[in-house]
Amino acid sequence: MEIEQDPAYQQMVNGELYLESKPLADLRINVRNKLMKYNQITDSKERNRSIKSLMKSVGDRFFVEPTIYFSYGVNITIGDHFYANHDVMLCDEGKITIGNDCKFGPKVGLYTPQHPLDPAVRRTEAERTAPITIGNDVWIGGSASILPGVTLGNNVVVGAGSVVTKSFPDNVIVVGNPARILRKNEPVKK
Amino acid sequence: MEIEQDPAYQQMVNGELYLESKPLADLRINVRNKLMKYNQITDSKERNRSIKSLMKSVGDRFFVEPTIYFSYGVNITIGDHFYANHDVMLCDEGKITIGNDCKFGPKVGLYTPQHPLDPAVRRTEAERTAPITIGNDVWIGGSASILPGVTLGNNVVVGAGSVVTKSFPDNVIVVGNPARILRKNEPVKK
Amino acid sequence: MEIEQDPAYQQMVNGELYLESKPLADLRINVRNKLMKYNQITDSKERNRSIKSLMKSVGDRFFVEPTIYFSYGVNITIGDHFYANHDVMLCDEGKITIGNDCKFGPKVGLYTPQHPLDPAVRRTEAERTAPITIGNDVWIGGSASILPGVTLGNNVVVGAGSVVTKSFPDNVIVVGNPARILRKNEPVKK
Repeated sequence: MEIEQDPAYQQMVNGELYLESKPLADLRINVRNKLMKYNQITDSKERNRSIKSLMKSVGDRFFVEPTIYFSYGVNITIGDHFYANHDVMLCDEGKITIGNDCKFGPKVGLYTPQHPLDPAVRRTEAERTAPITIGNDVWIGGSASILPGVTLGNNVVVGAGSVVTKSFPDNVIVVGNPARILRKNEPVKK
Repeated sequence: MEIEQDPAYQQMVNGELYLESKPLADLRINVRNKLMKYNQITDSKERNRSIKSLMKSVGDRFFVEPTIYFSYGVNITIGDHFYANHDVMLCDEGKITIGNDCKFGPKVGLYTPQHPLDPAVRRTEAERTAPITIGNDVWIGGSASILPGVTLGNNVVVGAGSVVTKSFPDNVIVVGNPARILRKNEPVKK
Repeated sequence: MEIEQDPAYQQMVNGELYLESKPLADLRINVRNKLMKYNQITDSKERNRSIKSLMKSVGDRFFVEPTIYFSYGVNITIGDHFYANHDVMLCDEGKITIGNDCKFGPKVGLYTPQHPLDPAVRRTEAERTAPITIGNDVWIGGSASILPGVTLGNNVVVGAGSVVTKSFPDNVIVVGNPARILRKNEPVKK
């Protein structure tokens, strides 16, 4: 069964309230078990090739330091020339789309799930997601968190330890909790 | 020897200045060594059963993603239906009590130890603790930190990346560093 | 080849724009591979002796909980009586100097690299560093981040979850994002 055909998968990536189906749970367990093993492969080429194989689409020059975790992998699309330092977490219940030439510092977290605010609903495990979209040339500093629904434009620099709760356009440096624009950062003309 | 009978243990959980005793050190080393092994168990049932066995009391439907760490385990009480995502840290030098139906995001840290502020005392390894108490239906977002002495009521939602330095009552959403109430969040009546 | 003689190493630790040389890359890969193994050693003495052997200089009474990562090790100097809790990250592209009697909480990150702000330069992997210098008797709370170029004096206490973006003098407690002085904290006279 193609997971994309699963009705719960469709609800999940479309931002509807959903309950994880058997196919989704099976996929998530399979991905976790593989990541637990792949993260221990010392050879970097083999480790990265294995981890990459669990994601939907990844470009050239992909390198992640151990230990990286994500939930399903099938919702992660990454462009060329990606680097993630140690202990990055990509919660890809919602779609995570990352452009080219992006760098993530250690302990960065991208969080797409939104548990319901009503506790009676939250208790059922039903949840919603909102996608995270990262442009090209984005540098996310260590220990920063990116929240559900955030879109970052091209050449956004996120300061270490920032908590990004809303979207930002191209060519800005954002810092703080919640992250705010520190200043513009236009590329140097040539 | 029951660790609860150890005088240093009594000082530790009672918030007095204490020095770790031999029985406490032995327990902590034993717990660390076991967690290093248990966190690598791929089978989720076996991994969670093993980790749970190190805690004082845990209800039904307990699930933690790898890698979780805590210090002694004997100071952790968790209700039914608990879920913690990857890389959660529970520093249970002081007592940690968690209600039913709680969810912790990735990289959440609960920190009960308080090192002395006078450097000459801190150098001796003496420290104090303050307990952390979490109600029912609490959702703590990814990368959030909960500090010593904090009590959270029922149905508290802690935003991702927040640093919770003081206690909050039932039915609030708290965010920021230091965390403040963003808004009330009463359960939907039925 | 002594890495200190490598021109790229010299540029790296001197804060100049540099590209990682073959000797630097080889060293970093070697350190990562060793840390992946050493972090899994259950025996604390053996684990700590192994990890310590990768650093430039470390005093007596060195203890780090698993899992710790750093980039090169050769840029890390630590005094006597150091303790780091789980999941500490020391990005030592720039020099990291830590005094005596320091304690780091879980998930602390020290980040010396500064990627260029111009995306065309950042894409080349060229980067700069700025050193981090930590005095004696410094306690850094869990999940705190220390940014490039920061110097902390003696007896500085950094609150859990803080993001330290600038330097602070002796005997202060700093908290927040960005971290600010909460209050003075002079040692008790005897």
